[in-house]
Amino acid sequence: MKISARNVLKGKVKAIVHGEVNSEITIELPGGAELVSMITRASADHLALKKGRKVMAVIKASNVMLATE
Amino acid sequence: MKISARNVLKGKVKAIVHGEVNSEITIELPGGAELVSMITRASADHLALKKGRKVMAVIKASNVMLATE
Amino acid sequence: MKISARNVLKGKVKAIVHGEVNSEITIELPGGAELVSMITRASADHLALKKGRKVMAVIKASNVMLATE
Amino acid sequence: MKISARNVLKGKVKAIVHGEVNSEITIELPGGAELVSMITRASADHLALKKGRKVMAVIKASNVMLATE
Amino acid sequence: MKISARNVLKGKVKAIVHGEVNSEITIELPGGAELVSMITRASADHLALKKGRKVMAVIKASNVMLATE
Amino acid sequence: MKISARNVLKGKVKAIVHGEVNSEITIELPGGAELVSMITRASADHLALKKGRKVMAVIKASNVMLATE
Repeated sequence: MKISARNVLKGKVKAIVHGEVNSEITIELPGGAELVSMITRASADHLALKKGRKVMAVIKASNVMLATE
Repeated sequence: MKISARNVLKGKVKAIVHGEVNSEITIELPGGAELVSMITRASADHLALKKGRKVMAVIKASNVMLATE
Repeated sequence: MKISARNVLKGKVKAIVHGEVNSEITIELPGGAELVSMITRASADHLALKKGRKVMAVIKASNVMLATE
Repeated sequence: MKISARNVLKGKVKAIVHGEVNSEITIELPGGAELVSMITRASADHLALKKGRKVMAVIKASNVMLATE
Repeated sequence: MKISARNVLKGKVKAIVHGEVNSEITIELPGGAELVSMITRASADHLALKKGRKVMAVIKASNVMLATE
Repeated sequence: MKISARNVLKGKVKAIVHGEVNSEITIELPGGAELVSMITRASADHLALKKGRKVMAVIKASNVMLATE
């Protein structure tokens, strides 16, 4: 599958916290930076996410804001 | 300012393409990975974005999807 | 690729309108309903979208609102 | 009310799973396809959603990604 | 129509800038604060937006971030 | 920090409801209007949100829809 989302970052699952309908997944990127993702719990189950699993973070360009100091 | 968005990644502006109301900004992260951001042209002007400027990419956790191969 | 986004709808491209940095793509779903998507022009090019091409619309559950009459 | 969101799909509620602050609503579209929506639990209550209720799924064009195989 | 989006703010159109596929609409809220909205140009046309027209800004709760100083 | 998000509204926290991974925060704007925000519980903790605390609601222009009656 080739997706229109412009941002696809490889990483691996560092932590998972399940709520009742949503799950918070922390991804570790190469180099040590982290990304936090909130997806449905059903998706977390469907992707069989668990600590250490390789995943890609997928982010649409219109959801990336920019900031300066 | 401290923001609720969980993901703040430091980088610098690599390329800017202006449309009439939106601008596409490519950010280079440390290590060479890239992020693409679509913001209003007025914001790009307001932040005085230009090639080489240090910026932070700010992404709400609920806008980060995950994928597996 | 298996993605966390819960909604994947098959259709085909019915119309494309390019702006300078974004493109509006109209998708026809089986049965005749339509979906409109706004993606970066670079993505439209990268996916080689053109009238009649089979595509999938991908929508994160947190971006689906509900309404009643 | 007439809304700027370009995508309004009619369906009916197939399933509801409540979390503490969010609710996951599965909608059945005519023809049998399904859409999953994540809204606040307060909204699910406010709209009096229940199995079988007719609803519309409302999706902004900028939240529709596209993918090809 | 009753919508799940939790935030509906009344205002009137203060300014419109059209791009080729998107339009930037500035809304003046009672009291003088402003909101900026980016919608498709086709939606701006469909809603017949023009300076002075009464409109409502509709925002899903999951798209509202918070910040502290 | 200067952010690309075009909409920054000052208010104060009126109510907080915590779920396991997300928190719903109600903000009171000057004049009495309210905004509801859904953020991660970790963010609510990180910002030390509590009733009466001054906050800013931050909303990207592409997440503001418009509606007419």
